[in-house]
Amino acid sequence: MLELRLVQGSLLKKVMEALKDLVTEANFDCSATGFSLQAMDSSHVALVALLLRSEGFEHYRCDRNLSMGMNLNNMSKMLKCAGNDDIITIKADDGSDTVTFMFESPTQDKIADFEMKLMDIDSEHLGIPEAEYHAIVRMPSSEFARICKDLSSIGDTVVISVTKEGVKFSTRGDIGTANIVCRQNSTVDKPEEATVIEMNEPVSLTFALRYMNSFTKATPLSNTVTISLSSELPVVVEYKIAEMGYVRFYLAPKIEEDEEETNP
Amino acid sequence: MLELRLVQGSLLKKVMEALKDLVTEANFDCSATGFSLQAMDSSHVALVALLLRSEGFEHYRCDRNLSMGMNLNNMSKMLKCAGNDDIITIKADDGSDTVTFMFESPTQDKIADFEMKLMDIDSEHLGIPEAEYHAIVRMPSSEFARICKDLSSIGDTVVISVTKEGVKFSTRGDIGTANIVCRQNSTVDKPEEATVIEMNEPVSLTFALRYMNSFTKATPLSNTVTISLSSELPVVVEYKIAEMGYVRFYLAPKIEEDEEETNP
Amino acid sequence: MLELRLVQGSLLKKVMEALKDLVTEANFDCSATGFSLQAMDSSHVALVALLLRSEGFEHYRCDRNLSMGMNLNNMSKMLKCAGNDDIITIKADDGSDTVTFMFESPTQDKIADFEMKLMDIDSEHLGIPEAEYHAIVRMPSSEFARICKDLSSIGDTVVISVTKEGVKFSTRGDIGTANIVCRQNSTVDKPEEATVIEMNEPVSLTFALRYMNSFTKATPLSNTVTISLSSELPVVVEYKIAEMGYVRFYLAPKIEEDEEETNP
Repeated sequence: MLELRLVQGSLLKKVMEALKDLVTEANFDCSATGFSLQAMDSSHVALVALLLRSEGFEHYRCDRNLSMGMNLNNMSKMLKCAGNDDIITIKADDGSDTVTFMFESPTQDKIADFEMKLMDIDSEHLGIPEAEYHAIVRMPSSEFARICKDLSSIGDTVVISVTKEGVKFSTRGDIGTANIVCRQNSTVDKPEEATVIEMNEPVSLTFALRYMNSFTKATPLSNTVTISLSSELPVVVEYKIAEMGYVRFYLAPKIEEDEEETNP
Repeated sequence: MLELRLVQGSLLKKVMEALKDLVTEANFDCSATGFSLQAMDSSHVALVALLLRSEGFEHYRCDRNLSMGMNLNNMSKMLKCAGNDDIITIKADDGSDTVTFMFESPTQDKIADFEMKLMDIDSEHLGIPEAEYHAIVRMPSSEFARICKDLSSIGDTVVISVTKEGVKFSTRGDIGTANIVCRQNSTVDKPEEATVIEMNEPVSLTFALRYMNSFTKATPLSNTVTISLSSELPVVVEYKIAEMGYVRFYLAPKIEEDEEETNP
Repeated sequence: MLELRLVQGSLLKKVMEALKDLVTEANFDCSATGFSLQAMDSSHVALVALLLRSEGFEHYRCDRNLSMGMNLNNMSKMLKCAGNDDIITIKADDGSDTVTFMFESPTQDKIADFEMKLMDIDSEHLGIPEAEYHAIVRMPSSEFARICKDLSSIGDTVVISVTKEGVKFSTRGDIGTANIVCRQNSTVDKPEEATVIEMNEPVSLTFALRYMNSFTKATPLSNTVTISLSSELPVVVEYKIAEMGYVRFYLAPKIEEDEEETNP
């Protein structure tokens, strides 16, 4: 039997909004460690990993490891019915082909339960090794979202270049070019407004803006975003979920700038 | 001659927003009692009744009973041009084929008059007898609107079941099922946030969510909604208009749950 | 070389929003006097004139007169990427076929430069002589915008009639007629809320509402709008830009009311 009670139910609503445009169907894995998901986006280009650690739940009962295949669009429809202050409980009986989401209003005057059918989804769990990155940029998540959105009005790809001084986001399109530089600035009043760069060596990599913009749907989950870059590895765009875990997005860089121009 | 002056003109704007999606054309009846309307919705399934009592108007002159056929969409276009703080006056000369809406800004610096053509509309006035209901639920109107909207994302019909403990709203659709229970709670701080149930006998009835969602367009008119249920009668969903009257919606229950499944 | 630094960058963003729906492509003219534009709208009915005087810029360097052809839609895309508090600098090298917009955040932590291709645009500069007007109406810009929008839901043209008492806006359509009168009221608390009429002789002129509604896109630029009317001249709808200049729209009146009805 599975019973996971999350007092801050709005967190789960935000997680769904972060994932549902990128991933249509996926297996949610429950174990003693926590509630997690790993899935490729529907075009098999980007990888998403979610972890909500068991310690973050008010009540966490998971008798045995369980993998539940869900349609994220349907799950999102149901979670949208939860109030922002509601407590959300996820329940499943052993061997059942349904999962139940229970929403309790803070006053306990309104109790809703939504039962959703589960699906059989083939998936292989990729091992993602810990890696060394050439550069790690931590910056305000809203700033990163704004930059990705702004550059999308000019071009299709973004070149992210990191030096000690700062991180530069560049694009090029029919109507012109754009460069946005964010300087390292750790001396701001609020730590979440800082842009902090840890760099072993300079790096400059090109990514599809379409995916970056999808990743920024996770912005409401965290004030800051961490972007880990290495020339041989997919970029990791990570949104930490306070005291519970993270949503991480992985995306391979475009190898050649020329290639993108012949295939716009 | 007709001249009805309503200081809180925004009320009339809200009434139009509540009715115009459901009713396209209707006769507004003016008498010494008040300004009223009774009309079927365009698919002849639901009935709407509006009453604005003469005492609620600052000035109310109606020399003889008058029935004015209006296109509610056009009337709504005109009333949208009134400011939210404007005083609205409805004027018509005897035998005229037009009605005039006059809007005065609070400072009297802006005066607008909109003249609309009247229409000949056949209508029969149904007598609606006072009836005894098995159960009457009073609850916050915004809560009822939220529930109808939420359930619509799962199914097409809602089963409303009333017991002494509370009222349950249920639906069923392709992606799963949903139940929302609101407990009787008369001990809240603000009386308009209470859910109060008067019950003679338990009742469980099925309704089309499409109509319920149309009814909730009246939500801005009142903090609370009253739902009167009886197994032999149409449900009445009533929004009181402070010190003036009401908007009431009548809808027959679906007779058999099975039927609805063969005719989705 | 051209280098124009505008501390209140949001002004330029608002100018673009005011112009881009009316004018697709135009030459921006830079001289020692200021940054200006004169262009017909794409249907060659209305004329737009913009002036931003050199004194309004923090830094204004324009070595020689320069005319830069820009696509206003593309320029708007780029300026939308500037933050509302950003300082905007417009830069161009002599003989270059590009212009650069630089955006600096108030903290200087984020610096963006957007480079846009220039275009060759044929244009003739019309001399607009100073003229005497029969009547000049100054009123709150938001009020004027509201009236034009409201009347558009009833008819296609607006008759603007000025007397000493006030200004009347009238329209007529299939569903009825509308008249909105704004009385002269110079005794309001805030001067920008006054409606002030300077009149030599009464005037009544008819205009296409479609264009008036386009002009009101400039509403965010100024709290007041000035409407100058004369029976032999195009109307001038002017939005002053504080301490810098103006946006002016010119539109010829419709000659005969009858004509408009045969050509709706």
